Amino acid sequence: MDDVNFAVLGTGGIGRRTLEVSTHKEHLTPVAACDRHGVAIDFDGLDVDELLEATEGNIENEVATDGGAAAVKQHGEQRGVVASAQADPTEDAIDDVIAVSEEVDAVLIALPNYEHDFIPRVADRFLEAAYEGVLVDVLKRSRVIGMLDEKRERLEESGITFVCGAGATPGFLTGAAALAAQSFVEVEEVDIHWGVGLKSGYEDNRGTVREDIAHLPEYDIETARELSDEEIEAIIDDHGGVIEFTEMEHADDVLLERAGICDAEDVTVGGILDVRSDEKPTTTTVSVTGRTFDGERATNTFQLGDETSMEANVNGPALGYLKAGVRRNRAGEYGVVGPAELMPGF
Amino acid sequence: MDDVNFAVLGTGGIGRRTLEVSTHKEHLTPVAACDRHGVAIDFDGLDVDELLEATEGNIENEVATDGGAAAVKQHGEQRGVVASAQADPTEDAIDDVIAVSEEVDAVLIALPNYEHDFIPRVADRFLEAAYEGVLVDVLKRSRVIGMLDEKRERLEESGITFVCGAGATPGFLTGAAALAAQSFVEVEEVDIHWGVGLKSGYEDNRGTVREDIAHLPEYDIETARELSDEEIEAIIDDHGGVIEFTEMEHADDVLLERAGICDAEDVTVGGILDVRSDEKPTTTTVSVTGRTFDGERATNTFQLGDETSMEANVNGPALGYLKAGVRRNRAGEYGVVGPAELMPGF
Repeated sequence: MDDVNFAVLGTGGIGRRTLEVSTHKEHLTPVAACDRHGVAIDFDGLDVDELLEATEGNIENEVATDGGAAAVKQHGEQRGVVASAQADPTEDAIDDVIAVSEEVDAVLIALPNYEHDFIPRVADRFLEAAYEGVLVDVLKRSRVIGMLDEKRERLEESGITFVCGAGATPGFLTGAAALAAQSFVEVEEVDIHWGVGLKSGYEDNRGTVREDIAHLPEYDIETARELSDEEIEAIIDDHGGVIEFTEMEHADDVLLERAGICDAEDVTVGGILDVRSDEKPTTTTVSVTGRTFDGERATNTFQLGDETSMEANVNGPALGYLKAGVRRNRAGEYGVVGPAELMPGF
Repeated sequence: MDDVNFAVLGTGGIGRRTLEVSTHKEHLTPVAACDRHGVAIDFDGLDVDELLEATEGNIENEVATDGGAAAVKQHGEQRGVVASAQADPTEDAIDDVIAVSEEVDAVLIALPNYEHDFIPRVADRFLEAAYEGVLVDVLKRSRVIGMLDEKRERLEESGITFVCGAGATPGFLTGAAALAAQSFVEVEEVDIHWGVGLKSGYEDNRGTVREDIAHLPEYDIETARELSDEEIEAIIDDHGGVIEFTEMEHADDVLLERAGICDAEDVTVGGILDVRSDEKPTTTTVSVTGRTFDGERATNTFQLGDETSMEANVNGPALGYLKAGVRRNRAGEYGVVGPAELMPGF
């Protein structure tokens, strides 16, 4: 397969780290990055070091409600990505990326996802522009997949392969579940239990913490969006800095069902977030229990080393799925696809 | 992707079980099976139950030296696959499969591999027939990959995608290693340690045991081939039924290097075979140690439940990789490819 280039929408934590990790990958060239204030485009490849340095240390934590690119830098001399010599200010950065998208193999959508229809609306903009290529998101919530599925025919007509949920979870961990399932002719149960220690990474990942809080029984995505930073701090204090999540509405379930691994109802997702420590409060573990063709029942497991950060487990897999998506796209396979469907398997 | 059909060469342990597991998979149709005595072909789909029942319980353990299909049934009223009502006797079963191969998406080569060049010679026969499709083997030894690589250009010209090493190991476990590697920007070490308990499965897996013995320091593939069944029993007795293997010449190393995961020299493969118990003497574990983009060093692990048989871990993954190979083939990607290359990732 030929080289792959990509654009990233959003230069918050995920966008920035994706750019950084891409510099470690051969045959992968970042050609565009944007936030709501500006856009950097260079088809010879962005100078990632310059871009990250120029915009270091000032992550914006705004809520995007306008369909534009958010989660940007704000406190530099110039706001956001415009602090980079490679970037220009713009009225609508997504439009600027769409304008050159004919040359772009894949677009990673690293925008906050406070509203369910936010990423689907971004997809609409690429559909309106008759984009042919790959869109990748790292979303988490089950219901967004359904909204994307409603666009399947339009995506197919346009020639878009939409890879959804390609981060750590659901992405990395449902991929592991799909692989682990290969010992079995019937999968009975998939249990995904994650641990995240986010002390030093907390500042860079406020959006993720806010999204996680939306999974607590007392909150939902709307009420979490309304919380001030102080209210979020208070919630964290109430939990002593360690918040346990059970029965999360995570897209893992629908993505595994789509891939034919098991029924969505056989998937459970939970985890523990500790914002007071960098050590994981529990080891991230995927357990797949099934029945083999010769009648045995067993559990295969996949565990991430405690020293791997959430960031490392999002960005490597996201780029791997991005490439797998480009391969599908070039083969003429369009529509909506989850990480588990990109794994070998029937 | 459309439905996939496949032929299996050899109806020994692996061939038979692949047929059985395929009945659990949607969109997968077995259309041909053969051994050195006969061939069964039905493009509406073989009746797997009939074929397996008719040929049950009499696995031949001959050594193939003639390039024909071996590891067949022998003690039935009619020898081998011919005991099935669906099969006809033949002089050269592989030729019969090649004769219909224009209609066959994939061919699983489940023949014994006592001679290094045996599977490459089977590939030659499909090359001579200008086959366009997928060939899959479940071989283990590093040097065979090199022999197939020498045919790369011819395979590409013919339109063949050769998936090599698609069984449990290297297949399943290198796939797991490739996935586990995604947390890292640099992989330092991959350790693959397997456990196999083969008491009740021993009769059906003599070929595998013989191949394993060839990995002991005192033997090689040639001397192991010369061993009588009695001599093999004596070797097993000498080890008290439990044989430990270290530093195996397993294709895992070259396959992971091919996929860009790490250098071959950073891969170690070992295992413990217990032919006196069905319980695994050790839990099959893949450990991948690497460095994350943010400078941490960690180990991700993949473990197979002790209750999963070697058979279950060969045949599910082999069919998964078969499908992934067909997808590549239909996209016009030809040549030699290992399981780890079929995983998402850069």
